[in-house]
Amino acid sequence: MNSFLRDLLGAFSDGRRWLADVTGRKSVTHDQLVELAEALLSGRGEASGVAIAQEVLRGYGTLTGEARTAFFATLAERFGPDRERLAAAAEGFLAADGPDAQAEAALQRASEPRRLELIRRLNLAPGGTAALVSMREDLLAVLRDRPDLHPVDADFQYLFTSWFNRGFLTLRRMDWDTPASILEKIIRYEAVHEIQGWDDLKRRIDMPDRRLYAFFHPALADEPLIFVQVALMDEMADAIAPVLATDRETVDGGHATTAIFYSISNTQVGLRGISFGNFLIKQVVEDLSREFPSLKTFATLSPVPGFRRWLDGEIAKGGEAVRALPRAADILPRLSGGDWIDDPAADKEMKPALQALASHYFLVARSPTGKVIDPVARFHLGNGARLERINWRADLSEKGRRQSHGLMVNYLYDLKDIERNHEIFANKGEVVAAPAIARHLKALSLRKTATAQE
Amino acid sequence: MNSFLRDLLGAFSDGRRWLADVTGRKSVTHDQLVELAEALLSGRGEASGVAIAQEVLRGYGTLTGEARTAFFATLAERFGPDRERLAAAAEGFLAADGPDAQAEAALQRASEPRRLELIRRLNLAPGGTAALVSMREDLLAVLRDRPDLHPVDADFQYLFTSWFNRGFLTLRRMDWDTPASILEKIIRYEAVHEIQGWDDLKRRIDMPDRRLYAFFHPALADEPLIFVQVALMDEMADAIAPVLATDRETVDGGHATTAIFYSISNTQVGLRGISFGNFLIKQVVEDLSREFPSLKTFATLSPVPGFRRWLDGEIAKGGEAVRALPRAADILPRLSGGDWIDDPAADKEMKPALQALASHYFLVARSPTGKVIDPVARFHLGNGARLERINWRADLSEKGRRQSHGLMVNYLYDLKDIERNHEIFANKGEVVAAPAIARHLKALSLRKTATAQE
Amino acid sequence: MNSFLRDLLGAFSDGRRWLADVTGRKSVTHDQLVELAEALLSGRGEASGVAIAQEVLRGYGTLTGEARTAFFATLAERFGPDRERLAAAAEGFLAADGPDAQAEAALQRASEPRRLELIRRLNLAPGGTAALVSMREDLLAVLRDRPDLHPVDADFQYLFTSWFNRGFLTLRRMDWDTPASILEKIIRYEAVHEIQGWDDLKRRIDMPDRRLYAFFHPALADEPLIFVQVALMDEMADAIAPVLATDRETVDGGHATTAIFYSISNTQVGLRGISFGNFLIKQVVEDLSREFPSLKTFATLSPVPGFRRWLDGEIAKGGEAVRALPRAADILPRLSGGDWIDDPAADKEMKPALQALASHYFLVARSPTGKVIDPVARFHLGNGARLERINWRADLSEKGRRQSHGLMVNYLYDLKDIERNHEIFANKGEVVAAPAIARHLKALSLRKTATAQE
Amino acid sequence: MNSFLRDLLGAFSDGRRWLADVTGRKSVTHDQLVELAEALLSGRGEASGVAIAQEVLRGYGTLTGEARTAFFATLAERFGPDRERLAAAAEGFLAADGPDAQAEAALQRASEPRRLELIRRLNLAPGGTAALVSMREDLLAVLRDRPDLHPVDADFQYLFTSWFNRGFLTLRRMDWDTPASILEKIIRYEAVHEIQGWDDLKRRIDMPDRRLYAFFHPALADEPLIFVQVALMDEMADAIAPVLATDRETVDGGHATTAIFYSISNTQVGLRGISFGNFLIKQVVEDLSREFPSLKTFATLSPVPGFRRWLDGEIAKGGEAVRALPRAADILPRLSGGDWIDDPAADKEMKPALQALASHYFLVARSPTGKVIDPVARFHLGNGARLERINWRADLSEKGRRQSHGLMVNYLYDLKDIERNHEIFANKGEVVAAPAIARHLKALSLRKTATAQE
Repeated sequence: MNSFLRDLLGAFSDGRRWLADVTGRKSVTHDQLVELAEALLSGRGEASGVAIAQEVLRGYGTLTGEARTAFFATLAERFGPDRERLAAAAEGFLAADGPDAQAEAALQRASEPRRLELIRRLNLAPGGTAALVSMREDLLAVLRDRPDLHPVDADFQYLFTSWFNRGFLTLRRMDWDTPASILEKIIRYEAVHEIQGWDDLKRRIDMPDRRLYAFFHPALADEPLIFVQVALMDEMADAIAPVLATDRETVDGGHATTAIFYSISNTQVGLRGISFGNFLIKQVVEDLSREFPSLKTFATLSPVPGFRRWLDGEIAKGGEAVRALPRAADILPRLSGGDWIDDPAADKEMKPALQALASHYFLVARSPTGKVIDPVARFHLGNGARLERINWRADLSEKGRRQSHGLMVNYLYDLKDIERNHEIFANKGEVVAAPAIARHLKALSLRKTATAQE
Repeated sequence: MNSFLRDLLGAFSDGRRWLADVTGRKSVTHDQLVELAEALLSGRGEASGVAIAQEVLRGYGTLTGEARTAFFATLAERFGPDRERLAAAAEGFLAADGPDAQAEAALQRASEPRRLELIRRLNLAPGGTAALVSMREDLLAVLRDRPDLHPVDADFQYLFTSWFNRGFLTLRRMDWDTPASILEKIIRYEAVHEIQGWDDLKRRIDMPDRRLYAFFHPALADEPLIFVQVALMDEMADAIAPVLATDRETVDGGHATTAIFYSISNTQVGLRGISFGNFLIKQVVEDLSREFPSLKTFATLSPVPGFRRWLDGEIAKGGEAVRALPRAADILPRLSGGDWIDDPAADKEMKPALQALASHYFLVARSPTGKVIDPVARFHLGNGARLERINWRADLSEKGRRQSHGLMVNYLYDLKDIERNHEIFANKGEVVAAPAIARHLKALSLRKTATAQE
Repeated sequence: MNSFLRDLLGAFSDGRRWLADVTGRKSVTHDQLVELAEALLSGRGEASGVAIAQEVLRGYGTLTGEARTAFFATLAERFGPDRERLAAAAEGFLAADGPDAQAEAALQRASEPRRLELIRRLNLAPGGTAALVSMREDLLAVLRDRPDLHPVDADFQYLFTSWFNRGFLTLRRMDWDTPASILEKIIRYEAVHEIQGWDDLKRRIDMPDRRLYAFFHPALADEPLIFVQVALMDEMADAIAPVLATDRETVDGGHATTAIFYSISNTQVGLRGISFGNFLIKQVVEDLSREFPSLKTFATLSPVPGFRRWLDGEIAKGGEAVRALPRAADILPRLSGGDWIDDPAADKEMKPALQALASHYFLVARSPTGKVIDPVARFHLGNGARLERINWRADLSEKGRRQSHGLMVNYLYDLKDIERNHEIFANKGEVVAAPAIARHLKALSLRKTATAQE
Repeated sequence: MNSFLRDLLGAFSDGRRWLADVTGRKSVTHDQLVELAEALLSGRGEASGVAIAQEVLRGYGTLTGEARTAFFATLAERFGPDRERLAAAAEGFLAADGPDAQAEAALQRASEPRRLELIRRLNLAPGGTAALVSMREDLLAVLRDRPDLHPVDADFQYLFTSWFNRGFLTLRRMDWDTPASILEKIIRYEAVHEIQGWDDLKRRIDMPDRRLYAFFHPALADEPLIFVQVALMDEMADAIAPVLATDRETVDGGHATTAIFYSISNTQVGLRGISFGNFLIKQVVEDLSREFPSLKTFATLSPVPGFRRWLDGEIAKGGEAVRALPRAADILPRLSGGDWIDDPAADKEMKPALQALASHYFLVARSPTGKVIDPVARFHLGNGARLERINWRADLSEKGRRQSHGLMVNYLYDLKDIERNHEIFANKGEVVAAPAIARHLKALSLRKTATAQE
């Protein structure tokens, strides 16, 4: 990129700050805000769009939580499509005999709610994108109690999907030369293995065998949207503590064979449902492959956040997995106690039992709607990864014990199999897993096992 | 903006270059391309979207012109909405009694053509945005002969309107420290008063009383989308030659009273219909106001590209304006000769006659669809400017004589009147003009004159 | 500055890192190193200077401490001027009758030690400047025990004075957008009021009423050479704790009347004796004046590092100041106890006593060589500041009590008086002080008081 | 380099502009200027150095040419060393028996002229370095007529040598993304093969097989100090026209075997005598080697600027080379005519004759002081290159014919031989040349030939 671009995005970075600035300024009423929104959609908006958009966002920023929800309700009711025009278009389309591109296009245009254009025009304001992402965060917070606002959210999501298209995102490595203001956000946003201050962060980004990559969008230029942390290693990690240890030995990047993605965090609540992770992982796999030809294996070291809750449910209701577990009467009571995990003798009996139950959790168990239960598994399997290994005593933090009895898993990203894996998972709902996973399952006396990759 | 952003957009700038690179590489057939497009929309696209998008764009780049048109036709026929689903949604909507947000949303979703998602996914490829803008340029070139492709173009325009939202554009001043690669494009793209090489360019950007501003988009980072050239002066310019003269005296920016926008050029054919100019002018007015508090007047010095063609038509058919012109029998014959304009004596008779006719052209004459005839006038009046002055002997270039008998006009941008002017023009179709314009008109013996601002 | 410059200095930043890299690589002997140095000065050095310089610096990096000192000794003995040539030039100069520019120039050239050119050629290596600064740091560490190495140090200092000329330094504000790698150094280098980690740093650089400025040199681009911390306030600070408090109220920069320089730290031991602080303070005063027109007063809040040691000496030997102190028999014993300072009643008696003694310390007491004793005072008075106020209970940290019984002082920088103050101090050795300082002194029964500015 | 550096040099770039700005401002007299210079060296200079330095430079800028020369004369007479102190130091040194580092250092310090410190302090001013380089340019212009000013020039050169040490220079590739303001200077400064405007420049920097590299200094950040133009080729160029042709075929960089340095231009007259070219060529050889492993040969295509003048002299005086030339009576008269060079038949007789004479010019002929006559040859041979080939009909421009009867030569840079070549040339004064050069010489009937490398 030529040097000319460096100031190209100056105008974008002040969205949140801007919203914050309005605190204490003259507030507006709901009706004034709606009036402004109507003005923005009118001819006045064409003449003075930037100024009016700014005023709407400023006014919104002065509203209380309840008033914001009321504004969303008005967006739902009053800023939908023009119903008469839509009805006419629908009738016109149905009346056509044979395909009629004209009628289809008319129907498409008529079905667009007015709030779509409203949101687009709000984006005229400096810092508008950040303010709109923040606005949707407010909306999501009340959505569970206000299903009538779903159409408003759908419109936000529709536009954000277009605006935050992967083609507009840039991958950036974060390192120790990154501005502190951005690194501070990395510390705050890390959601998987909490970053314990700046020293811990430095260990994760300023060592030759550690990397942190983030996606950025030009309109939110100082906000990482999602980031992934990578450890370059000489084997596939089977526990998190050695990865994060303060006194570990570093691996020479040129000799590393394995890249372990040990943490992936989304940062913007207001962008929920806009998918970045898939692209992020694949881009990082490609970039690392180019930089370190010695890398052969790309895998995650991932938590299993839903395992223990599922298992507790199975135990409570005497589910299939529990019934099929040999020596369940011995094992299950120990699980509810806390300290078996630190007992070396546990390896003999508890390890195979938990691995078998976890295999069942991944390969057999399904949610009421027929989906794989574990959200992290759904993400990686949906990306085309395969479930590679179930690691015993892999996360002994309080959180690790509480969520998954200390288990973690590896998902393997093998670029040549990704399409096939994805299709098996997406079309047949089958989990592609290494043979070892199916072998764990055999410890249970089940009638039928799931497919495993040979 | 913090320094971190400077490399943020590296990935975007290679779109056109990329398309060019494919020349000579293995070409694809129409059917292969369609197959790839289908794959991109399928589960494969979810797993390997970036790679497939890249391949579609590469393949498209190898097609001949005719094959490209055939591909657009396929987009029109085969990548529209799912008609059965759309019919069901239309019926569901019509069957609802009373407002039904659910049904409206379903209809909105069902009416979306598959090619919209296809275009969004094509944007996954590095350089995708530039390639898509270029693709639409191809489409526009055949649209006149292929009205059936209009729905495809509408979808391109719909997405581009969203992607090139003013909120994503950045205003940049171009000066002598700008990379030569970008300045070269300015020279090439200038559409109003041709830039005669680098020396001429330097005079327009490297003098204290000259400015050139452009809008850029992050995904087309080395392509100015539109640019405007400004002269800081101590009076409102009434001719172009002194503005561009090589030996003029410079005005000290701190004492300039008037900013003259003397050239505005769109650069990307593929972005036709996406409006930037309005925002560009207003932003530049704001920025200059801040930088030079002495500036009181912001106005254009604009060509009148449709005047002579209209007048020749009037003469040919003996239209109203011509009939109302006193001493028409003397004047009209001289017009068709070429050299009256350089005759000092022409001032006496020809000047008031032409100003009267031009006033009629702006204030009274209308196109068959009732619009102001002059495209430049429609642009500025639509922005809320007012027609300020008709300048005699203002552009004596061959082009100026041919288009407008040497006339140019000033449009005045007075930010406090912009909304009102815009509404008068947009809603009533009336041209807001300085009183002098109406006075010119009085030289004609018409029954009724247009409204002029007092 | 145009954007072109941003990569301009890439080659410079790796000096220290480079020296560190050699650890473990093949080491060289003293004689090999000297041979390399001779080669660098020979014709080989002209042909292959960069490579040989690199090898000398690498080799030096592998030496032990003792071997480094031996190398410096060789520089002193063997790389001085050519004595025969120098003798001839000296005789030639003395033989001339009348001014002889030729002879003077010859003598100048002949007197230059060979190691000057050697050091200049060592700077050919990438990262050479940083390596040479580091080399001088080694030299300074042994200089007290090796007075014979002083001429070597003088040559380093001579060159560094030329290379680190203020004209080559750039002032940069450090803020929260500065790379973490540089901020980390600020934390490490702060020498006056220790920075307690990143939160404390953030309070000092990311608040609207706090600033931190540093000088940088292009050849040490990621190393701040010296930095100053500034608090914008609405009165002259009389204690450090409120300045650094975590819960203080911020002052709106636009209303601040007073800029307090509360910490100045040099960072590069190897640049000892090269004066930056004077230029730094004056540049920051100028820049802040421009940015905040409301600022009227520029002053320091400075430690008094030599006060207690001096006072303890006076007490021990019954010096003049102590003898002149009224009620000394009461006061002096309390001083040696530690806790009187926290006793509110101390204000009555201890405060005037300490202020009187401190006035004596500044205005009257002198070192054996006749200089003002306090090094911080010498620095600011030498810059042309005036001693403005002695603040009681101003630094209650352990260090503050130990150094100065909790006293701090303000030095006032009034640009219009700086030259005059400097001359009075530099030429007459008199301390320019506010009248209040002399009034404190009157509490002592001395025969003669120092001059104070009226 | 971390991103932090991009603004690091802001203060430096305005030197020339600054000097230009003073035009028209209040001028100073010679005596005022000298008074200011004295003030700068006094205590006032310590307190207010930046301001006084600025005023001296401003004042100097207002002087006429003659007044500038008078100022230089004052620098020579009045700002030399303190003669009494110098005499004392010289006597002290001579009086010492045995080496006395103390006395040597004292003599070194005493011999330094006051103007050295004056120049250093002038560099405190913003833009000082550029202003001083410009000042020396003025000095050089009068030096031939004013030998008494040589000591002043020596001091400028001494400081510039230190300031412009290669360790402070950065190599930058100039390409089409370089700011126009810098490229414009490249066009202006090119001294060997004139750049015919922007199109010609673009051909030289924006083609895959053409490169242009320049050295920059942080204190003259927008001024290239020296630059070299390189053609990547698949053979050693033997004529300039094909290298510069507008319609030539480009060579794929990855397959190029030969890098031809076809133009090297110094740009700053005021830096005459500070050697950059040697470092520039070697650095570019290294960088290109790394980037294009296929490159095996690095050579120049160089003019022979002194050949024709020398030959004309030989002819006029009937020198050795001319007397030894077979068939001289035929050949010499044709030379003075202009058009033989375009006659194809000339190849047979004129080519060997000219090559023989040129060999003599390089290998045998010497200046009165015993040096190789050709300045370009001295430069490259001094760098350790070897004379590789004499090219016939290589530069048919008017300048090429006038300077060298159309001859050009290649100098070969073979890094492994550079030191040896340099030593042979520097120590023995012998020209290292390819065997072919000596063979040309054999056509002359000389008694003794020069050494050629076998």
